[in-house]
Amino acid sequence: MTITAAEQWAGFKPIVTADDYVASLRGRATTVYMFGELIEEPVDHPIIRPSINALAKTYQLAIDEPELATAHSPLINAPVNRFLHIVESPQDLVMKNKMQRRMGQLTGTCFQRCTGLDTISVLHSITYEIDAKHGTRYHQRFLAFLKRAQAANILIAAGMTDPKGDRSKRPSEQVDPDLFMHVTKRDADGIYVTGAKAHMTGGLNSHWICVMPTMNMGEADKDWAVVGMIPNEAPGITYIYGRQSCDTRALEPGDIDKGNAQYGGQEVLVVFDNVFIPHDHVMMDGEYEFAQEMVARFTAYHRASYVCKTGLGDVMVGAAAAIAQFNGADAASHIKDKLVEMTHLNETIYSSGIASSHEAKQLPSGIFMNDAMLANVCKQNVTRFPYEIARLAQDIAGGLMVTMPSAADFEHEVAGPMLKKYLKGRGNVPVEHRQRMLRLIENMTLGRNAVGYLTESMHGAGSPQAQRIQILRGMEVERKKDYAEALAGIEYEDGV
Amino acid sequence: MTITAAEQWAGFKPIVTADDYVASLRGRATTVYMFGELIEEPVDHPIIRPSINALAKTYQLAIDEPELATAHSPLINAPVNRFLHIVESPQDLVMKNKMQRRMGQLTGTCFQRCTGLDTISVLHSITYEIDAKHGTRYHQRFLAFLKRAQAANILIAAGMTDPKGDRSKRPSEQVDPDLFMHVTKRDADGIYVTGAKAHMTGGLNSHWICVMPTMNMGEADKDWAVVGMIPNEAPGITYIYGRQSCDTRALEPGDIDKGNAQYGGQEVLVVFDNVFIPHDHVMMDGEYEFAQEMVARFTAYHRASYVCKTGLGDVMVGAAAAIAQFNGADAASHIKDKLVEMTHLNETIYSSGIASSHEAKQLPSGIFMNDAMLANVCKQNVTRFPYEIARLAQDIAGGLMVTMPSAADFEHEVAGPMLKKYLKGRGNVPVEHRQRMLRLIENMTLGRNAVGYLTESMHGAGSPQAQRIQILRGMEVERKKDYAEALAGIEYEDGV
Amino acid sequence: MTITAAEQWAGFKPIVTADDYVASLRGRATTVYMFGELIEEPVDHPIIRPSINALAKTYQLAIDEPELATAHSPLINAPVNRFLHIVESPQDLVMKNKMQRRMGQLTGTCFQRCTGLDTISVLHSITYEIDAKHGTRYHQRFLAFLKRAQAANILIAAGMTDPKGDRSKRPSEQVDPDLFMHVTKRDADGIYVTGAKAHMTGGLNSHWICVMPTMNMGEADKDWAVVGMIPNEAPGITYIYGRQSCDTRALEPGDIDKGNAQYGGQEVLVVFDNVFIPHDHVMMDGEYEFAQEMVARFTAYHRASYVCKTGLGDVMVGAAAAIAQFNGADAASHIKDKLVEMTHLNETIYSSGIASSHEAKQLPSGIFMNDAMLANVCKQNVTRFPYEIARLAQDIAGGLMVTMPSAADFEHEVAGPMLKKYLKGRGNVPVEHRQRMLRLIENMTLGRNAVGYLTESMHGAGSPQAQRIQILRGMEVERKKDYAEALAGIEYEDGV
Amino acid sequence: MTITAAEQWAGFKPIVTADDYVASLRGRATTVYMFGELIEEPVDHPIIRPSINALAKTYQLAIDEPELATAHSPLINAPVNRFLHIVESPQDLVMKNKMQRRMGQLTGTCFQRCTGLDTISVLHSITYEIDAKHGTRYHQRFLAFLKRAQAANILIAAGMTDPKGDRSKRPSEQVDPDLFMHVTKRDADGIYVTGAKAHMTGGLNSHWICVMPTMNMGEADKDWAVVGMIPNEAPGITYIYGRQSCDTRALEPGDIDKGNAQYGGQEVLVVFDNVFIPHDHVMMDGEYEFAQEMVARFTAYHRASYVCKTGLGDVMVGAAAAIAQFNGADAASHIKDKLVEMTHLNETIYSSGIASSHEAKQLPSGIFMNDAMLANVCKQNVTRFPYEIARLAQDIAGGLMVTMPSAADFEHEVAGPMLKKYLKGRGNVPVEHRQRMLRLIENMTLGRNAVGYLTESMHGAGSPQAQRIQILRGMEVERKKDYAEALAGIEYEDGV
Repeated sequence: MTITAAEQWAGFKPIVTADDYVASLRGRATTVYMFGELIEEPVDHPIIRPSINALAKTYQLAIDEPELATAHSPLINAPVNRFLHIVESPQDLVMKNKMQRRMGQLTGTCFQRCTGLDTISVLHSITYEIDAKHGTRYHQRFLAFLKRAQAANILIAAGMTDPKGDRSKRPSEQVDPDLFMHVTKRDADGIYVTGAKAHMTGGLNSHWICVMPTMNMGEADKDWAVVGMIPNEAPGITYIYGRQSCDTRALEPGDIDKGNAQYGGQEVLVVFDNVFIPHDHVMMDGEYEFAQEMVARFTAYHRASYVCKTGLGDVMVGAAAAIAQFNGADAASHIKDKLVEMTHLNETIYSSGIASSHEAKQLPSGIFMNDAMLANVCKQNVTRFPYEIARLAQDIAGGLMVTMPSAADFEHEVAGPMLKKYLKGRGNVPVEHRQRMLRLIENMTLGRNAVGYLTESMHGAGSPQAQRIQILRGMEVERKKDYAEALAGIEYEDGV
Repeated sequence: MTITAAEQWAGFKPIVTADDYVASLRGRATTVYMFGELIEEPVDHPIIRPSINALAKTYQLAIDEPELATAHSPLINAPVNRFLHIVESPQDLVMKNKMQRRMGQLTGTCFQRCTGLDTISVLHSITYEIDAKHGTRYHQRFLAFLKRAQAANILIAAGMTDPKGDRSKRPSEQVDPDLFMHVTKRDADGIYVTGAKAHMTGGLNSHWICVMPTMNMGEADKDWAVVGMIPNEAPGITYIYGRQSCDTRALEPGDIDKGNAQYGGQEVLVVFDNVFIPHDHVMMDGEYEFAQEMVARFTAYHRASYVCKTGLGDVMVGAAAAIAQFNGADAASHIKDKLVEMTHLNETIYSSGIASSHEAKQLPSGIFMNDAMLANVCKQNVTRFPYEIARLAQDIAGGLMVTMPSAADFEHEVAGPMLKKYLKGRGNVPVEHRQRMLRLIENMTLGRNAVGYLTESMHGAGSPQAQRIQILRGMEVERKKDYAEALAGIEYEDGV
Repeated sequence: MTITAAEQWAGFKPIVTADDYVASLRGRATTVYMFGELIEEPVDHPIIRPSINALAKTYQLAIDEPELATAHSPLINAPVNRFLHIVESPQDLVMKNKMQRRMGQLTGTCFQRCTGLDTISVLHSITYEIDAKHGTRYHQRFLAFLKRAQAANILIAAGMTDPKGDRSKRPSEQVDPDLFMHVTKRDADGIYVTGAKAHMTGGLNSHWICVMPTMNMGEADKDWAVVGMIPNEAPGITYIYGRQSCDTRALEPGDIDKGNAQYGGQEVLVVFDNVFIPHDHVMMDGEYEFAQEMVARFTAYHRASYVCKTGLGDVMVGAAAAIAQFNGADAASHIKDKLVEMTHLNETIYSSGIASSHEAKQLPSGIFMNDAMLANVCKQNVTRFPYEIARLAQDIAGGLMVTMPSAADFEHEVAGPMLKKYLKGRGNVPVEHRQRMLRLIENMTLGRNAVGYLTESMHGAGSPQAQRIQILRGMEVERKKDYAEALAGIEYEDGV
Repeated sequence: MTITAAEQWAGFKPIVTADDYVASLRGRATTVYMFGELIEEPVDHPIIRPSINALAKTYQLAIDEPELATAHSPLINAPVNRFLHIVESPQDLVMKNKMQRRMGQLTGTCFQRCTGLDTISVLHSITYEIDAKHGTRYHQRFLAFLKRAQAANILIAAGMTDPKGDRSKRPSEQVDPDLFMHVTKRDADGIYVTGAKAHMTGGLNSHWICVMPTMNMGEADKDWAVVGMIPNEAPGITYIYGRQSCDTRALEPGDIDKGNAQYGGQEVLVVFDNVFIPHDHVMMDGEYEFAQEMVARFTAYHRASYVCKTGLGDVMVGAAAAIAQFNGADAASHIKDKLVEMTHLNETIYSSGIASSHEAKQLPSGIFMNDAMLANVCKQNVTRFPYEIARLAQDIAGGLMVTMPSAADFEHEVAGPMLKKYLKGRGNVPVEHRQRMLRLIENMTLGRNAVGYLTESMHGAGSPQAQRIQILRGMEVERKKDYAEALAGIEYEDGV
């Protein structure tokens, strides 16, 4: 059951095109359940495939727009996909944000590759700092891993969220120790871990999973303070596929009612049963005091990554403008005003995300990290504005969005002509254009990609209250009291 | 093809119980298409049945809570279902609102019987006033129809929204005259109408459809100014069933993933091809100048009927509170504060609805009508607050709502135990309780009943801008300018 | 120093007109401080007079619109000012709300008479219930007082808010016992009280002050559980006048820059130093267990009384519409839309207020009390919407509202012609009209009456969090969980 | 009356300290009216002085924090105050924003120097482009002026907003040509201009005024297309001082009730009557086609300058936190949550401002300009969030903010001890601290600095609708439609 890091890498050959990527997922020894059944070949499953397509687009974009989606890696002295690039400057983070927005525009969904990117960013600095304190060699292991990852252009997914069990108890205090991932055995070759990672975005579509702690830990939680890189098809891993609103429309014939037939997101529960990790792929084991900072840095990166939703917001603005035109309502001043409001909210999100990136600061390992306050502000806005943008899009769309018969009815010999006669839009707009645009808005506000645009915007990278706690911690209220007291003329005798 | 009113009524026998109602829908000669297929027996279709159940509950409630859901009808000197009762006082409208909220609490969806109720309310006064001006006999026809309807306890659906075609053109100016329903022929027995009515809520589940104009009309539009009562199975009618988010989950085995397995809404496109209406069931034919007022009164009644959504809001509050408890988060102050906010918004909607009813005024026919300003204010709030309540419910629910595997996976011999181990909630709360509650919140915020709770709240009884236009018309800005000018000390020489 | 109730009443003669009222305030033996000076005759003080004018309007309205502002009192079998009328039905509460809105329209400020009205309402039931439990005779005393009050048509102010000191301590636990008003001595003639009442709206302009507890009390707080009626000029009372934004503009010549030259509000701190109350005017003394319910009922009445702010909202809408017209911008669609939004928010407040009144329930003493949930909802909306209405009014007004020179400059021989040339509005609108309307909006959004329209809307009748606590208590979350669990299909084995 | 540029500059000697600046304003030949009177020496006027202090702080900051408030000018090869620095990089704009926020924290008001800064920025590129097209020499004139300005460290104010008269008419169409500033005469030495500039922020406190067009112009408006630099004391200029809420508190003794005794803003109407400008100080004369772009660029710079309000927001957060502590309420979870919300909104504004700066692009003249979309988004947020921050601050402050007696009463021998006894805050917090902090919050939400924090936030740099129009223009809706159509599967035959 043990295997060396080199052996684990042996099967990977460099991925260049989107097709290469799809091919790389075929024939893997993964155990995947969905709807109570074992899935033979996930790549060909009509519900799973759109989520693979979204990821494949990250490879395509690197070819189509290399200045945006690639960067020069000094590690291997070659261009790499930006999703595998180490952040060398604030500008790198800004370019990341622009790539994320672009990907959102092109896919209209969650393209699932950001958690891996933000994971390698945080590991760069944390491994460096653990080594500095403990004399460990995690940073070199990390760099070695990353060189191989860049060369092979593989995909990494972050496995962070443990099930947590009783929220009032620490990992070591839980009745069931597996409710947080932990080391069950250590030997000369490596370590073994057991537990589960929930809400894993794109977990099944990646090549490697980086497991890491989900919250701060104490000395008693040492066995739970573990970071390691695990190949997706490692023995002992089970994937159970999460349902999404309207997921089974992907099983229906035709593409119209799917709304966005090509792209979708993916969430899986991943269960690890004594999964082996060779030492070369272990990047924390017991250094519990770094868990909290690791999570804080990950959220600083990842909460700003949610600017991707502005790409989806662009699609919403475009969809609303298009359906208004198809309906013949685009000249109404209230329609224009709603499009302005949608844009304003969307750009406000974008502002807080890129501001956080522009204001990044350098860490001891040399990497740059987003401004934490603004990253939290960005994510907090993401938990609000997409809902309002979606509401306005539904307002503009009109009620037909939820009363329109199926595409099959439009093709029926009796019903079809009736529908085409009565549901015709303005002028010579084909009724199918209305169908398609309404289904896209349904897809993004109620259907499969509403999961990514709305609920994931709420809870991904931490629920709203998590951001508020960080804002509370970072708001420097004492300094601000000083400003107010100075202006109010309040003086303290001791000068404090 | 002609048939008398009496003949049309011959087939109806009085409905008492919910079962009677379901039985009354069986074996009808209706033509219904869904997913490109003709539906043999709609009553037994798993997608349609939940919408029938919701309506059936209106019969059940009359038995379970007669003081709420019945009233004494002076027309037949007997108790009748309140959904068929003529509004004799403001208190009747308030009781209607309370019944609507109760129905929302019990079904968590649109129970589809309000359009018929508000239709008979508006016809009472409009037919009276047409007769007063034109010497017609519509009011007597209406009262005769209503007596039969009350005695048989049948269901009426409102057929109001025409497809409208080119929005810049009047009915008589459209290229295709059928884009607004119109009279195609008149003879000694009755009239024939052709056209379509879109977004017909519960249209298939009713016994009679009242077709009526959707907007103001001019003299050239006389043939389009038509109101008539048509049995659902009248020859020439075709129903095409509207899709809803997650509609096909009703076809899946098991009830958990449905969220709300028992109840759902229904929207149909109804096409009328030279459908005959005997004179006794014609209640407007050509009196175009009453079309605008008819619509205005219908919206005054119907926009206040949207207090039903506060019943769904109660379910949302309860669901959020329950999942918070299952998650072990119910003691957190931010959770309590969000429940308070949800309640506050919900009760604000309720306030504007019942205030509109309490402030009802009597019309010449003796019936009472909601205060129009407050009804519009109610509906405008309904286009906003349910979206925010839904957002807060998703916040409290947590991300698992959109990442949880299917119920079938929970039953699988391998995946099931993993899920039960890792997705367990607090203490001894069964994992199935979490499943069910999360699926209910999914159902109401993204799934089938999100159509009723959100999008229908937006567009039903008129889209937001329609209310704003009414508020603009009714805001009495000149009177308010006078107040301001008096306080500002502005005097006009001519006293104006 | 002791004096009988009859002696206390001896000096009052019935007030009919607004002038009678003003006359009744002259020559009183009150001790009033403002700007560090003792005020000789408050009635003639230019800062105080506008607040007296606002109250005087309550007398005028009873003459001008008796159907609105008077009611028949069975106690004295005669018409009385509605501000002294006992609530005999929900309709009485609704009429109260309509009168309050009307007063707001006419004065554009806080007219200060509602606390007294809501005080007599709450005393009716509470004294009745204390008597029922303790065999006391408070209710008869109350009715005797009220008859005299109605006959003399006097003004009562509520003295409720104690300074409270250390918020974490009960009254009896405070270092200084006076931080809550308490009984210092009892003798055969009556009792003596010491303490202070803060934020007393119109406290100086009334004839009687009703002191009463501000929060729940325990057995140790018996001496603090006191309710009594005290004449404004009773020995031992000191008034200290509260500042308001722009208060000293009332001292300037001319009326333009005052914005609303005629009307204003008033807040005073009232200090009581061993003030005597004859037994006949004591209505609680030691029955501490009724303190909490007394406060709860007072807030149920008083939070709905804040519909008065919709009268001010009407003035805001009118002022915004007028200045838009003077500026030549009234045809712009965004201006109209903002007026609609202001109206919508204003009517939403109104809805929750009158809904609370319409849904009033009868108490054991026979009086009716507002629905507490909806009253809290009303007040919560009042803590939000006036701020947004004010913001929109400032938007419409334009920047000139805060950059316009003084009225004196408009009259200056050099500056005046320049201002009249350059600040002219559209067409033949006199520049003075612009001046006056902009100053009115300044007055209500930044100036003296912004205190009443904004900050008092926030904190009067309890700050926002106080309403949220009441909403939390009254939201019946268990009942709502039942709805959700029923729809989700959750069953408990023990049927719970 | 003619005078050369050199002569105009002769009187200026380099300003270094804040005192130098104040001294430079003394004894000038300006004509200033306030309250209908000619002001002898504005510098010593208690209402005017706080606005001078705010500007003086810009000189002080350059000494205290040179890295923030100075920059190296290549024009004179020396460090200059950043308010006079040409934007050489996006980073320069970001530093400008940080300096603006810092100034807001230090003064709590509008410090009035940004319009001049943004004016020189826009003139750099516009003069360059006019020259390129017309062969004029404006750019050299501008650079010459700027060198002198930098060397002397003087203050420039922007004179942009014309009174506009009838909004439906162009400048040349107005009945009174002076309603837009225009050239009345041209001769060998220079030009003469007549008109007025309204809402001039800090207009009286500056050394030079740059007059420039306020909107787009056509060929007929050539005489109105004029840009020139005019010394403040040029013959023919009259200043009329704008009133502000609570302005006269500055005339009262004591500093407590002023809230912010040291700093305030200033708005003046400036009237120009045939004011002479030597050719060297003319930078546009007739090139009407550049007027629109000039305004667009100015707003791109200036709307991002409104991040200054986040400095005031910091004061609001600090003031709210301080008063909560003084009141003993700072541990309440709802208080903390409100502080978080205030911070979140404030940082959201900051994000959009600095994002706009970071994303600046270079113009042909070499200068960098803010991203226009994000600058508009920033300003749009500024028209909303300060109002909500102010509302929350009032919520936290409590009602005492508007009911507290004057500072003089606290000093009175009778009233003072009462107030100190009853209005004491928690523990050993001196009552004066509560007074001061409440007055500061009053100052910023209702009083003098509410003008700067609220109403100027609404209308400065263009009212909200102006930003919405710019967002509409820049939202690239066709590109976004393409995204939506691609995802919806809509294809056009002609590929369009």
